[in-house]
Amino acid sequence: MHRSSFPTPWRLAARTARMNPSAIREILKLTELPGILSLAGGLPSADTFPVEAVREATERVLRESPREALQYAASEGFAPLREWVAAQMGRQGLAVSAAQVLITTGSQQGLDLVGKVLIDAGSTVAVESPTYLGALQAFVPYEPEFVAIAGDDGGPLPQALASAAGARFLYALPNFQNPSGRSIGAARRAELARAAEAAGVPIVEDNPYGDLWYDAAPPAPIASHWRAGTVYLGSFSKVLAPGLRLGYVIAPPAIFAKLVQAKQAADLHTPGFNQRIVHEIVRGGFLDAHVPTIRARYRVQRDAMQAALAAHLPSTGALACRWQMPGGGMFFWVELPEGIDSEALLAKAVERGVAFVPGAPFFAGTPRKNTLRLSFVTLGAEAIERGVAAIAAALRDLQEEGAPLPRRLRTAGAQP
Amino acid sequence: MHRSSFPTPWRLAARTARMNPSAIREILKLTELPGILSLAGGLPSADTFPVEAVREATERVLRESPREALQYAASEGFAPLREWVAAQMGRQGLAVSAAQVLITTGSQQGLDLVGKVLIDAGSTVAVESPTYLGALQAFVPYEPEFVAIAGDDGGPLPQALASAAGARFLYALPNFQNPSGRSIGAARRAELARAAEAAGVPIVEDNPYGDLWYDAAPPAPIASHWRAGTVYLGSFSKVLAPGLRLGYVIAPPAIFAKLVQAKQAADLHTPGFNQRIVHEIVRGGFLDAHVPTIRARYRVQRDAMQAALAAHLPSTGALACRWQMPGGGMFFWVELPEGIDSEALLAKAVERGVAFVPGAPFFAGTPRKNTLRLSFVTLGAEAIERGVAAIAAALRDLQEEGAPLPRRLRTAGAQP
Repeated sequence: MHRSSFPTPWRLAARTARMNPSAIREILKLTELPGILSLAGGLPSADTFPVEAVREATERVLRESPREALQYAASEGFAPLREWVAAQMGRQGLAVSAAQVLITTGSQQGLDLVGKVLIDAGSTVAVESPTYLGALQAFVPYEPEFVAIAGDDGGPLPQALASAAGARFLYALPNFQNPSGRSIGAARRAELARAAEAAGVPIVEDNPYGDLWYDAAPPAPIASHWRAGTVYLGSFSKVLAPGLRLGYVIAPPAIFAKLVQAKQAADLHTPGFNQRIVHEIVRGGFLDAHVPTIRARYRVQRDAMQAALAAHLPSTGALACRWQMPGGGMFFWVELPEGIDSEALLAKAVERGVAFVPGAPFFAGTPRKNTLRLSFVTLGAEAIERGVAAIAAALRDLQEEGAPLPRRLRTAGAQP
Repeated sequence: MHRSSFPTPWRLAARTARMNPSAIREILKLTELPGILSLAGGLPSADTFPVEAVREATERVLRESPREALQYAASEGFAPLREWVAAQMGRQGLAVSAAQVLITTGSQQGLDLVGKVLIDAGSTVAVESPTYLGALQAFVPYEPEFVAIAGDDGGPLPQALASAAGARFLYALPNFQNPSGRSIGAARRAELARAAEAAGVPIVEDNPYGDLWYDAAPPAPIASHWRAGTVYLGSFSKVLAPGLRLGYVIAPPAIFAKLVQAKQAADLHTPGFNQRIVHEIVRGGFLDAHVPTIRARYRVQRDAMQAALAAHLPSTGALACRWQMPGGGMFFWVELPEGIDSEALLAKAVERGVAFVPGAPFFAGTPRKNTLRLSFVTLGAEAIERGVAAIAAALRDLQEEGAPLPRRLRTAGAQP
């Protein structure tokens, strides 16, 4: 056969230069090593998966509507499921019609569709700092410039939104944010909506964790304060099972039709089989009894991690660490002393048989390398305790080696 | 609440100007009217769906690996299913490793990922003319310029590829193309691969219909003639069921990693539940017995449509129509006399209770408005006969009205 003089005929699109392997994905490979305790991935506990309910629902779908479940279907999604989502949102303080609900292949797809419809190369997207890495990955192929919005422990600062005027949207994760665990209170939500409207910056509100609250249910969505200016994303991954890949986007009429066109181009529609199974599960109120059992389990694990962090991590002295107990979700966010790189700590931690996720990849701008994310949903309380103890020991290893010690400390001539 | 002075805060990405509602989608709405016989959609016959096999496979998956099936999973896909696909491709003359197989949410998603990774705004994509409308819709958001490659009844002309030098790829559907039903023979495949390699234009080979052959199995894929220069797309939608949304992309190492990154950003992974169910169904050789039953059914329906077209459509005179019997797939492609617009015919046909798809949307360049596509897979033989008879009657209605009559005929002073 004729051999081309070129090593490859493929020319990659410019956008691919910014698409890189997920740091978390690479780290998750570490967690597959035998004997590693993983506090890294945000994998829901498989003990929470309602296997029997999935079995019964599948049986019923295949008995009652097999031809429809296995056939091509509408790009918008299965109408009764869209209606269920709309009703559920009403219970959470957001009045929407089923016509505004688009069923997606996981809420990750919602992020991709939003990016495809709203981002031009070089346009600005405002994000929290840190923010969900998967959202950055979904948006990056559309080549935006990210601008990090200043925030505090209560979320993005409303007055900072003026600096984002012209941004295509603010991406915000108000409930138990991944990675920081931080939530936005009711008053701040209303202020953010007003400030965003004044700045002409619409909001993309992502809520995968809202049902996983352990102290008090979250306030009404930001979207309830500015319905025409907010796209809302939800998911069944945390309350049922991620392997079904079901999420949804709720969008105002101004952009709904374009999102549906993007959805159709992306995968025609989300599997109708899965949509009907999930509708069969949820329509009778299953989640009202099921989600509290997930909350109860994760609350215990969160409390175990809080206790382990308090017991093992130094809270004073040169190695003092900071964290806040999250009111829900899946993660603790730990700040190491300035100058300690959590990637160096990870290497030591893996030697001691535990893995976590360094914080740097969650920053769209300058990363704070002294941060890390710990998941408390995958492992049980006892393993969490061992894992956190091993991380604390790894931190002491790092100090004893003196290698990537905090610059402040080295300047001060600190001794082991 | 403060009211913005702008009617909407949303600013759409420039790409959305080219994203439009699918003409087929709008036409499919017609087919939902009561009493309409639809020869429009490419909906597989629900009678072919292996409901019992899906039920048994689901039962086994939920019994043996529920925690894995319902959990997050690898973006590349379920390893045993990737291995099955690789082995199956080997049987079809394309030797590939499982490491080159990416499982997608329907092969439509494969088109989207290919577009995301290979198309820059303003870059050129070479297409057949006509071509699959869904591919145009998948590529359009990445803003390519389409160039239609000259072809004949045997497919694209190899010598025409030189004019596409610099194109990011040639998109080709070699088996029983949607919409034209046309196939590319073995010799032309080899010539196309050589010409493409000489022109430096890689190939995206889409094969959703290859298993649906009614006279003879198709030759080896184009990819077998230029493995480093071809991406191959396959689907389970036509041999099992579209509602499971399972397809695959086979890509050379030069671009595989980027496709996986794009896949991860798009929906993390295709539902593991569905992947395991389909693997459970196919691993024991189920398709070897099942696909022949689909072929037998559709062969009867194809023959019924061929007979109905021959019986009812004029083949001589002012209204002479042309078509070729397809060797497989789902569609007949009919050419009306020059100057008759198939959209006008559709309006008449709907009055007579039958729907089809006008050909214009399938052309990336200047549309041939005197074409139409007829599906023979959704309806049985008797309904196909009635549908084709109604279309022939609608054609006579159009002629009798004299309204959108062929210009040639009007110039010649034709009388009813």
